[in-house]
Amino acid sequence: MPRYAFRIEYDGMPFQGWQRQAAGQPSVQAAVETALARLTPGPVTVAAAGRTDAGVHATGQVAHCDLPRDWDPFRLAEALNWHLKPAPVAVLACARVADDFHARFAALERRYTFRLLSRRAPAALDAGRVWQVRHPLDIAAMRDGAAHLVGRHDFTTFRSTLCQAASPVKTLDEIGIEAHAVPGGTEYRFHLRARSFLHNQVRSIVGTLERVGAGGWPPARVAAALAARDRAACGPVCPPQGLYLTGVRYPADPFA
Amino acid sequence: MPRYAFRIEYDGMPFQGWQRQAAGQPSVQAAVETALARLTPGPVTVAAAGRTDAGVHATGQVAHCDLPRDWDPFRLAEALNWHLKPAPVAVLACARVADDFHARFAALERRYTFRLLSRRAPAALDAGRVWQVRHPLDIAAMRDGAAHLVGRHDFTTFRSTLCQAASPVKTLDEIGIEAHAVPGGTEYRFHLRARSFLHNQVRSIVGTLERVGAGGWPPARVAAALAARDRAACGPVCPPQGLYLTGVRYPADPFA
Repeated sequence: MPRYAFRIEYDGMPFQGWQRQAAGQPSVQAAVETALARLTPGPVTVAAAGRTDAGVHATGQVAHCDLPRDWDPFRLAEALNWHLKPAPVAVLACARVADDFHARFAALERRYTFRLLSRRAPAALDAGRVWQVRHPLDIAAMRDGAAHLVGRHDFTTFRSTLCQAASPVKTLDEIGIEAHAVPGGTEYRFHLRARSFLHNQVRSIVGTLERVGAGGWPPARVAAALAARDRAACGPVCPPQGLYLTGVRYPADPFA
Repeated sequence: MPRYAFRIEYDGMPFQGWQRQAAGQPSVQAAVETALARLTPGPVTVAAAGRTDAGVHATGQVAHCDLPRDWDPFRLAEALNWHLKPAPVAVLACARVADDFHARFAALERRYTFRLLSRRAPAALDAGRVWQVRHPLDIAAMRDGAAHLVGRHDFTTFRSTLCQAASPVKTLDEIGIEAHAVPGGTEYRFHLRARSFLHNQVRSIVGTLERVGAGGWPPARVAAALAARDRAACGPVCPPQGLYLTGVRYPADPFA
């Protein structure tokens, strides 16, 4: 059966995450599979590069599936977008890929962005799109703290106790932090890049760096927390609504 | 009575516009006045720089009102934000101003931004925040068309037949158009700046320039439409959800 890859954008707010849940629980996977079921006989299973949690958004999720017949990729994307309505899920690109392409197992790199708004006034336009704190943050301190995490480490401190990964050792290739002036405050954008991430790793890292930025943690405490290899040493896990899966890299770009 | 000015952000989607409506119709003005009524005895009327239409957003609306007693401006903003919840309206700044300050009549300049998304896939994350078209647009042609509108002109063609302004002659100081690559397409941002605008002027201009960008109108037809001074010569008025009131300038910045 021919295999197709999709680049997908979604608003995570109405979903219990990417992964299909018990009946009645909305998930992005179920939304995409339901749209595919309108196009093709028999059940279709879709596999994604990142199984995002409830409330987490994507601008560059990648998924694949096998279909019983050939489709023109452009027409397939158009048909899926038609049947996805009114769910806030959109197929941005679609491509025919080789039978051995796998959205999850072939991925060389995942990129996430976390949006953290620091201002007194509530977010009227970006509610559900950012994590908001009402105090100022020190970007230099957050960058100092983040520097301790880049590289190959045992990230036991920064993964959920529910994490099912075989090993807590991961290589974090980058944590970049940008500050953008916004009306009434500052928005910080954390850009993280790694081959793969542990469950809740990004939210554990950003929640910890926020404590550093607020002055509650000296930056060196991030190094001590990492070295402890103890979940209890982590800062608070931050909420999901500021998190975006922005891109996935493969040996060859399936959408090029 | 002491006078206070407010800089206000709002999501226009749930409102019938800035201006107070018949009972039961939600408006931003009514939301702010209702929050003020929780703080102060007797009715308070709020006047704004721009009476935005239904669905139009603001990141920098300015309004003022008189209150029967003195308030610390910071505490007043905090109290208003508390009472505005859960409406998507936020007071970004508050200042005590002179008795002759008037948010509407003292304004020297209003700035609007219009977000126009050009891509095939629907807007999953920016639904209600952009106007979307599914075809490509030619930014050079849109800029050529826009150049005909900058300066002092009779804008009869580009105002609503319901517009109540005494004169259709306005000076448009700037129309800047930027292109931003976004996943799967391009977002065009139109930045317009003038002392004041006629009713539906921005949406009439952007709707016309979109026709130019799509290739349906040669840029010179914008000059002919302007010269016609005839509402019937206007392109289609575009929808409100891409429009943002981003700022208002006064002889002295009340929030400095």
